[in-house]
Amino acid sequence: MPHITLNSEEPGIRGLFRYRPEMALPLNALADALLCGDNTLTRGERELIATYVSGENDCRFCYSTHAAMAAAWLPEGMRLVQQVREDLDGTPISAKMKALLRIAGSVAVSGRKVSGEQVEAARDAGATDVEIHDTVLIAAAFCMFNRYVDGLDTIAPDDPDAYAVRARMTDGYVATLRLEQRGI
Amino acid sequence: MPHITLNSEEPGIRGLFRYRPEMALPLNALADALLCGDNTLTRGERELIATYVSGENDCRFCYSTHAAMAAAWLPEGMRLVQQVREDLDGTPISAKMKALLRIAGSVAVSGRKVSGEQVEAARDAGATDVEIHDTVLIAAAFCMFNRYVDGLDTIAPDDPDAYAVRARMTDGYVATLRLEQRGI
Repeated sequence: MPHITLNSEEPGIRGLFRYRPEMALPLNALADALLCGDNTLTRGERELIATYVSGENDCRFCYSTHAAMAAAWLPEGMRLVQQVREDLDGTPISAKMKALLRIAGSVAVSGRKVSGEQVEAARDAGATDVEIHDTVLIAAAFCMFNRYVDGLDTIAPDDPDAYAVRARMTDGYVATLRLEQRGI
Repeated sequence: MPHITLNSEEPGIRGLFRYRPEMALPLNALADALLCGDNTLTRGERELIATYVSGENDCRFCYSTHAAMAAAWLPEGMRLVQQVREDLDGTPISAKMKALLRIAGSVAVSGRKVSGEQVEAARDAGATDVEIHDTVLIAAAFCMFNRYVDGLDTIAPDDPDAYAVRARMTDGYVATLRLEQRGI
């Protein structure tokens, strides 16, 4: 049961969006800028960073939500997403994505944990400064979302289908919020 | 030196706002909603939560920035802000603020660290559910801002005056961002 009395039975961050719409709009606008805006990192790659950080922070709701999103956007699907969590080194993804995910993993611990060597390795593997910047900010933002969801002890559904259905809403986070506010 | 090549010499998050304005707007809109919007917690109390979390995360730029803000908004000024960091239990603030700051301190470690007992203690001291919600979200958001600033190894000025001057900009975060984008 959540730490506070919400005004709906919506799980995870969705119940919090409904409870405090004043905060929901900037939070979803940020998610859109980070994950859906124009970028040289694909939507799937950015969702994978969000998923990896949520796994490192042990946030079941965010992990399941963004794993379903990443699986929907990446050609390799859910198997790759799970492999990244279990064995990053052994996963068949680009050296650039591995280096960016290592930076994201450091951010999950502390901003001060990101090392010059990690950044250099990402750059050597072809990452641009903007890609390194966006990786750090996506990782930092999910340290926020994860703490928001778990700090209020919200409900995370067990059924994987609950997450997979929503991953098909592909118009972005603010658009999805608007639909939900209209009860669709 | 920052991990990436920025397009200005602005310190801390201000250099990042200038580098990636697409992200700066939603980030500042979020700061306004959290810290400047209508609330039963005063502006000074909310800046104090932001400051406390930034201290727990050892983020010098965010700590100094929001300590100056909190000191400007709280009648007790900087002395109280520093005391909260050094000795929360012994600081002469309300039992409610102490209980909320303890929740914020847990969020800084992990969302999962916030306990039912901490929430109960805040409620017993008079905190409403919305205040508990907002405390968790402010704390979570500063876990993001701190990681963003330190994960890219941005510059934090040594001179306390550099922070105090900006604390006098009281129109909110988006308004300040707009002024800076116009070079004022």
